[in-house]
Amino acid sequence: LHYSIAVIPGDGIGPEVMNEGLKVLRAIEESHGGIRFAHDVMDWNCTYYLTHGRMMPENGLELLKDYDLILLGAVGAPGVPDHVSVWELILPIRRTFQQYVNLRPVKLLRGLESPLRYKGHADLDFVVVRENTEGEYSNMGGRIHQGTPYEMAVQNNVFTRYGTERILKYAYSLAEKRPKKRVTAATKSNGINHSMPFWDEIVGEISKEHPGIETNLYHIDALAAYFITRPETFDVVVASNLFGDILTDLGAAIVGGLGLAPSGNINPERKYPSMFEPIHGSAPDIAGKGIANPIAQIWSLSMMMDHLDLPDISAVIMNAIEGVLLEGKVLTPDLGGKATTRELGDEIVRHIYQN
Amino acid sequence: LHYSIAVIPGDGIGPEVMNEGLKVLRAIEESHGGIRFAHDVMDWNCTYYLTHGRMMPENGLELLKDYDLILLGAVGAPGVPDHVSVWELILPIRRTFQQYVNLRPVKLLRGLESPLRYKGHADLDFVVVRENTEGEYSNMGGRIHQGTPYEMAVQNNVFTRYGTERILKYAYSLAEKRPKKRVTAATKSNGINHSMPFWDEIVGEISKEHPGIETNLYHIDALAAYFITRPETFDVVVASNLFGDILTDLGAAIVGGLGLAPSGNINPERKYPSMFEPIHGSAPDIAGKGIANPIAQIWSLSMMMDHLDLPDISAVIMNAIEGVLLEGKVLTPDLGGKATTRELGDEIVRHIYQN
Ligand SMILES: CC(C)[C@H](C(=O)O)[C@@H](O)C(=O)O
Ligand SMILES: CC(C)[C@H](C(=O)O)[C@@H](O)C(=O)O
Repeated sequence: LHYSIAVIPGDGIGPEVMNEGLKVLRAIEESHGGIRFAHDVMDWNCTYYLTHGRMMPENGLELLKDYDLILLGAVGAPGVPDHVSVWELILPIRRTFQQYVNLRPVKLLRGLESPLRYKGHADLDFVVVRENTEGEYSNMGGRIHQGTPYEMAVQNNVFTRYGTERILKYAYSLAEKRPKKRVTAATKSNGINHSMPFWDEIVGEISKEHPGIETNLYHIDALAAYFITRPETFDVVVASNLFGDILTDLGAAIVGGLGLAPSGNINPERKYPSMFEPIHGSAPDIAGKGIANPIAQIWSLSMMMDHLDLPDISAVIMNAIEGVLLEGKVLTPDLGGKATTRELGDEIVRHIYQN
Repeated sequence: LHYSIAVIPGDGIGPEVMNEGLKVLRAIEESHGGIRFAHDVMDWNCTYYLTHGRMMPENGLELLKDYDLILLGAVGAPGVPDHVSVWELILPIRRTFQQYVNLRPVKLLRGLESPLRYKGHADLDFVVVRENTEGEYSNMGGRIHQGTPYEMAVQNNVFTRYGTERILKYAYSLAEKRPKKRVTAATKSNGINHSMPFWDEIVGEISKEHPGIETNLYHIDALAAYFITRPETFDVVVASNLFGDILTDLGAAIVGGLGLAPSGNINPERKYPSMFEPIHGSAPDIAGKGIANPIAQIWSLSMMMDHLDLPDISAVIMNAIEGVLLEGKVLTPDLGGKATTRELGDEIVRHIYQN
């Protein structure tokens, strides 16, 4: 088995956590004969932007297209507007490669405690399926009357039947494979009265095709509150681009923090490379200190293995992460420890070799 | 002192909790000589809609205009689409009367426990200033290609300089009066690249006019997570219509639930009546059982007293609520007790007379 991976470490803590991710890949290769991850590192980040005036080369997307997979660290640096770093790198990748599923598990790992005063932690295990190509993140819109008191900006949220159906279909198929057989869809059709009633209609249609699945449609405000009051009741949560973004940071917070939360930007048809990245950003405040938690990055690799239909290797990685957490000796500061990024990465690698 | 109030109990648990609110008003009148709240009850709700084909009479807004204040319970019933009950009653009131500030305290009352495993509960006391007239809740937009695979919906978020400046100015003036002198503004300018960069610019401008106030601008996803990980750091949180909606349900969840969370829809210029209402909805699942928590409704009355510059009366109401919570004997099921809506309302009234 041979896979090619384009690696984009990015900015800030991105390269620091990516370093540990690459160690894990090497450990998998060495401990599992016959599997090979060939990777090239791309220096596309805000430094690249400051030199070249763009986040990636003109033919960047074409270059990426030939890889089986993309691994991203984190992008963004003070001095470069967020919408540049995002709209010229992450979003074009997500969209060009039809990575329309942003898959984000919300699972309390063994060895960790939730900040919620809450029983039944073992049941805190669900997945958010976030639409990743359209919706509220559209570059349609603009401004008028600049420099006058009448200035205004309009932002268009664009929801297509095509885009909405495919994400909902993915969510329902995923629910068919999971034990609770439940889909929770985020809406806000009481306040947002064009796009969200449209979304609700399509939820209604797709849910009819899956009579064995229970569907709950909740307004995003209520749903955010339920993430606090009864997170154990969720199984598959499906949401638009923005709502999925908000819910997954919230999800990360209830299972121990952004340092742990992984994601997969998935092209289910496998026509284009899928991209795996931590949910967290480049964290300029702690960048360079070597104390970032590499688990989100490493967990993303486990998601990558699932995507490659290598569930055993995925499990080896997760067991190594949970093994280290259960021992509780080598933890980064965000987890209450004093270990460095490297030390935690090494410890996870050690557990992989032991498996 | 004589005030006229239009009372709209609404649907579901709305009339049940409003009943307790009206008892509290009476108790205030009886225990504070010289103050009088004359109120008229409007039967505008989903039942009215099913009979008359509209949520309120054609001249409903004109009728309301002559009152000093509006008190709302909750609106919405199964069988009437949410966007009807909302867009034909609550939203026209908020907009016509320029109630552009939706003020929503997030405060852990004495006697309650947060679901967060978290020290320093005494510091959990901030306020969300939500824009209440524009933004993501706009009825601009529509659909095309219905009934084909190419169907799509566009929803326009509309941010005006006028609307954005006035909400930010309100937030900063409020922060000037509070101890922490801190404004946290919710944005998402990395993903939403027309309206949110515009919002950020105006935050920058207004913050310059308030050099004594610390400004933090956070993306809504991170901010939602901070509500879980460090809620004690907030003072005034200012947000667009949608973001404020999500943050305040989340805020309610971390201080004990939606049964407690009040709000004021405020026209700061006092040119039009302001409206006070619980954040919660009509809760059809528990309607008619007499077990809804009336505290959100009653706390809204305390906010109304603050709006009327009657801080002593506001304090009497809050002390009564907290007194009952501290005793912990008469609590509705959402608070872990067995009391009915009426019993909890009566207990609060009893504490008001004792003050
Ligand atoms: C009923 C609904 C439109 C409303 C809103 O989103 O404004 C409610 O959730 C609220 O928070 O007051
Ligand atoms: C960087 C930003 C645009 C991005 C998003 O909102 O999609 C991030 O928050 C994420 O969740 O991957």
